[in-house]
Amino acid sequence: MTTEFMAEVLENVGKMNPLVHSITNYVTVNDCANIILAAGGSPIMADDIGEAAEITSICSALVINIGTLNERTIKSMLSAGKKANELGIPIVLDPVGAGASALRTDCTRQLMRELTFSVIRGNISEIKFIAGTDTSDISGTVKGVDAIEADAVTEGNLDEACVFAKRLSAKTGAVIVMTGAIDIIASTDRAMITRNGHPLMSKITGTGCMLSAVVGAYMGANRGKLFEGTVAAVAAMGLCGELAYAKMTENAGGTGSFRTFLIDFMSKMDYKLLKDGAKIESR
Amino acid sequence: MTTEFMAEVLENVGKMNPLVHSITNYVTVNDCANIILAAGGSPIMADDIGEAAEITSICSALVINIGTLNERTIKSMLSAGKKANELGIPIVLDPVGAGASALRTDCTRQLMRELTFSVIRGNISEIKFIAGTDTSDISGTVKGVDAIEADAVTEGNLDEACVFAKRLSAKTGAVIVMTGAIDIIASTDRAMITRNGHPLMSKITGTGCMLSAVVGAYMGANRGKLFEGTVAAVAAMGLCGELAYAKMTENAGGTGSFRTFLIDFMSKMDYKLLKDGAKIESR
Amino acid sequence: MTTEFMAEVLENVGKMNPLVHSITNYVTVNDCANIILAAGGSPIMADDIGEAAEITSICSALVINIGTLNERTIKSMLSAGKKANELGIPIVLDPVGAGASALRTDCTRQLMRELTFSVIRGNISEIKFIAGTDTSDISGTVKGVDAIEADAVTEGNLDEACVFAKRLSAKTGAVIVMTGAIDIIASTDRAMITRNGHPLMSKITGTGCMLSAVVGAYMGANRGKLFEGTVAAVAAMGLCGELAYAKMTENAGGTGSFRTFLIDFMSKMDYKLLKDGAKIESR
Repeated sequence: MTTEFMAEVLENVGKMNPLVHSITNYVTVNDCANIILAAGGSPIMADDIGEAAEITSICSALVINIGTLNERTIKSMLSAGKKANELGIPIVLDPVGAGASALRTDCTRQLMRELTFSVIRGNISEIKFIAGTDTSDISGTVKGVDAIEADAVTEGNLDEACVFAKRLSAKTGAVIVMTGAIDIIASTDRAMITRNGHPLMSKITGTGCMLSAVVGAYMGANRGKLFEGTVAAVAAMGLCGELAYAKMTENAGGTGSFRTFLIDFMSKMDYKLLKDGAKIESR
Repeated sequence: MTTEFMAEVLENVGKMNPLVHSITNYVTVNDCANIILAAGGSPIMADDIGEAAEITSICSALVINIGTLNERTIKSMLSAGKKANELGIPIVLDPVGAGASALRTDCTRQLMRELTFSVIRGNISEIKFIAGTDTSDISGTVKGVDAIEADAVTEGNLDEACVFAKRLSAKTGAVIVMTGAIDIIASTDRAMITRNGHPLMSKITGTGCMLSAVVGAYMGANRGKLFEGTVAAVAAMGLCGELAYAKMTENAGGTGSFRTFLIDFMSKMDYKLLKDGAKIESR
Repeated sequence: MTTEFMAEVLENVGKMNPLVHSITNYVTVNDCANIILAAGGSPIMADDIGEAAEITSICSALVINIGTLNERTIKSMLSAGKKANELGIPIVLDPVGAGASALRTDCTRQLMRELTFSVIRGNISEIKFIAGTDTSDISGTVKGVDAIEADAVTEGNLDEACVFAKRLSAKTGAVIVMTGAIDIIASTDRAMITRNGHPLMSKITGTGCMLSAVVGAYMGANRGKLFEGTVAAVAAMGLCGELAYAKMTENAGGTGSFRTFLIDFMSKMDYKLLKDGAKIESR
């Protein structure tokens, strides 16, 4: 398919340098800030109820990540999210480990009930939790913050998974991003898949969080093209994984180097690189 | 001595991919998550009282690190720890800076009183604080979160230090890991020392925290062999330090590169590497 | 100008290995700890009101960074700060994003009112906020945690900016560090500028925070020479940026590698490197 939309997406990010507010976990927060900068945005992290909404109001996008949620920050997520909805600022939800504890479950449900999201990104276990579904074709349970192995999108169930994601998009009004070996990006009426990425991405913490952060940056600068912005972000992140893996191998490195190179390549991403490397397909 | 037990320890980690719950400090949390992944485990960080015990209950090990403790997280440590004890899930305690403030002192005492630990890992100052001792042969005081220089295990006091660690193990029921230039791992009836590691490990933050995290991963997959698992973790971490130092030197790097390579080598650790590099001795 | 004072500054840090207490944000806290170690200090992070003052009392310097301030940590900043003032322990203030929200504004004002700082370091927008000024020659507003582009010290307004910084120093009693393309370090009666650094430093998170941390380490070991210690820290950090950029380019890296190399070079910094690379000028 044509990849010209990516040129526009990247150009808009470069021109706008969107300010992205993240209320996120303290495990991967530094990587998220650095990859937002690498992607052409400007990060700000603020999670006190006394400023969350105000900070959101000066930003182009809000990323809510529940990775290390607590009583204090849940309130800030809601406060910032309401302000974002009020002002038409797009929100990404990253429901890390939704379903793994009652707190995460309740928090995710409350966020879904009280806020409108532009994008929801998770692994298949998390997205299925969001859907409140347990269909036999793509069934699974949650194992901590990782998707369980059986819970995978494969060539065999890909069409069903796309239908599932489209339906969830219709239900929630959000672009659905379900990441794994194959990534699905779905809105109500269309789904795209990307086959970028590398298995080693699951051997460092935060590749999911970082993708959600990049989606925030791309979408902040492409409000009229949320779907395209999201597809470009997913492809770019996956491609960075491939390139980082190749460089890691050349350097006889391991997962520490892989993480560094991942951010390296995001900072070097441009239309030529993305166009040549993106493996995107309409479904 | 024979190192065959290490083959089994590593194999079990690889097979099980143990989920490790850490309630830890925000300074080194990202490194801890990444090294748990590199070591073959799967990290989850959750410190809200509303989910701490529940998250522990789905995990294979719990790591409690008091590096940036606060009123809120102390409660979560106790809640998660009690659940772990109830379910027989092993706990590592890393009493970062115990003795440096009344809060750390009181918290450590409360944790020791209310919970049963499988492993306690600290530098000699912290371990001595745990022992509540001030013996003349291995005396010392706390300097922030680092062991003070005088507080060192040397060839001269090594036998006494092993006796001290064995006694503390008998008193607490935990495997005692006392790290420094020479590392001591002791249970009630045996002590082992490892001479791996590199002085540069004290010039990056978190090598102690990371070791405790790796102990969590190894022990989560080796519940019947906690002592062996712990010895293997200590040797592996030290060996990674040596290998990282060598690679840093080759690359004309500094402590930033050293940190990256440390995680690199943990992700490449296997039985052959560990067997050839481990410098272990019974005492 | 002569750079001999740098020899003494670095020597004192090496001899003393100053313990630096930081109450800082969770985005860049790991980088701050690692660069304090790289610079020859020893970091301790503690932000609970139950220990903040006590930890400060055993330290040689305190760094207060409001990057992810919250109700809980603001109290700890005040408590630790008062103890530092009482004991004559120097404090660095890094007013991250001051002016970007009422919370940051109020907190910064309260800190300024209740504490005496030895050094205040920020970008020009933050420093201007501290000054409560809006002069026509160096006007500007805050964009999140970054200085806005128009808010720059240039060759054209450099003399005015130095006068401005000296006046603010006279008003606050603190050495003022205003960082950007050109850095200004000012006390009441003198100003120096450094022309070190690289634009890529603004493309990773935390170079400002890291500089404040290094100032803490240098100043902790050079209490009698706060101004000189601060100038040396600013020049050293900027020089690390230049060297890191050169190495990144050689390695075909990106911002992830740049961040690693930045800390690398701080750990390799010595008088010869600093003397040869520092671009310092009296104004």
